[in-house]
Amino acid sequence: MPRQARQPAKHPALKRLGLRIRSLREQRHLSQEALADTAKVGRSYMSGIERGVRNCSTLHLLRLSKALGVSVGDLFTN
Amino acid sequence: MPRQARQPAKHPALKRLGLRIRSLREQRHLSQEALADTAKVGRSYMSGIERGVRNCSTLHLLRLSKALGVSVGDLFTN
Repeated sequence: MPRQARQPAKHPALKRLGLRIRSLREQRHLSQEALADTAKVGRSYMSGIERGVRNCSTLHLLRLSKALGVSVGDLFTN
Repeated sequence: MPRQARQPAKHPALKRLGLRIRSLREQRHLSQEALADTAKVGRSYMSGIERGVRNCSTLHLLRLSKALGVSVGDLFTN
């Protein structure tokens, strides 16, 4: 039997946050890897955040908002 | 030798967040236990968040902001 893929969290709020981070990143013409490196977030973890399957910590949110040049609150608005 | 107490994180940003959450809670005349129960955060974990020794998750922040009637961004402003 093939190894089962890890179940994604898919919480609607995490999904929205991930899409918002991706949108802010793309507006800045940053690759996912570049943002991950600047924010000191692991690259595969960064991918999980954008896909909404990671429930990241306060310190991750602060580093990501700083790397994107926005406030933490801006990560939660559309 | 006595068991050593767990080292607190004491990250300045977590400290500020904890003080901000405590202040918002007290303005609303809520006990720490009442806020913890409403936000579905463990009571001892809630204490750690207010003391700035817990790096809580995105979903915790969302539940706390909802329980306090503010936006996530409001948790990060003074």
